[in-house]
Amino acid sequence: MKKIEHIGIAVKDLEVSNLLFEKLFGVSAYKQEEVASEGVRTSFFRNGPNKIELLEAINPESTIAKFIEKKGEGIHHIAFDVEDIFSEIERLKKEGFVVLNETPKKGADNKLVAFLHPKTTNGVLIELCQEII
Amino acid sequence: MKKIEHIGIAVKDLEVSNLLFEKLFGVSAYKQEEVASEGVRTSFFRNGPNKIELLEAINPESTIAKFIEKKGEGIHHIAFDVEDIFSEIERLKKEGFVVLNETPKKGADNKLVAFLHPKTTNGVLIELCQEII
Repeated sequence: MKKIEHIGIAVKDLEVSNLLFEKLFGVSAYKQEEVASEGVRTSFFRNGPNKIELLEAINPESTIAKFIEKKGEGIHHIAFDVEDIFSEIERLKKEGFVVLNETPKKGADNKLVAFLHPKTTNGVLIELCQEII
Repeated sequence: MKKIEHIGIAVKDLEVSNLLFEKLFGVSAYKQEEVASEGVRTSFFRNGPNKIELLEAINPESTIAKFIEKKGEGIHHIAFDVEDIFSEIERLKKEGFVVLNETPKKGADNKLVAFLHPKTTNGVLIELCQEII
């Protein structure tokens, strides 16, 4: 794992939160993107080598809608940048982690992604991600 | 704000979680430190330009003990590296954020730190931190 690629934050209203994070960082989101398969609209802020991803649910079945209903707005996941997501999934499975996507799927921001189950990672939802070249 | 300095993760048992994060990152914690004023024992893992801080409560009055009682183990805060914590506190106050430590305090890992109230930051506990030189 090379670095924290991004932190995903669940928000109720993307426009409201975009303004808030603009004030926090002093810069605007560099990208906005809908990921229909995940039921989310997202926006991305750069922060040096890292990013912040805001996630708003676009339907009540979305994981983000359920997360907010249960826990309120806040940090949803941490994503780590990996060199080779396929070998990293194999390594982590051998170490005893539960990988939710044994075959990585296409995520936001042109990435292949796979999640680790929070029950094996101290309650933290961890995403592995690799840029699609 | 220059980058994500670290992510703070609340854990019940530092030794158990150290082993878990060693498996995740493939490296050991580079430092362990007690911050008596905060009622915590911490350990730090490097991940490229970023760090992960694990926090275990050393007494039941510790913020971390209360956090785990309420929400369970998981992500507690995000810390951003800032150039000048004093001017950043002033800037953020003017932008409407509630700063919990108007005078920065000494935190773990040789840092001056100040927290922003989660009610003004989408439910996210944000720490500003600046290396003490």
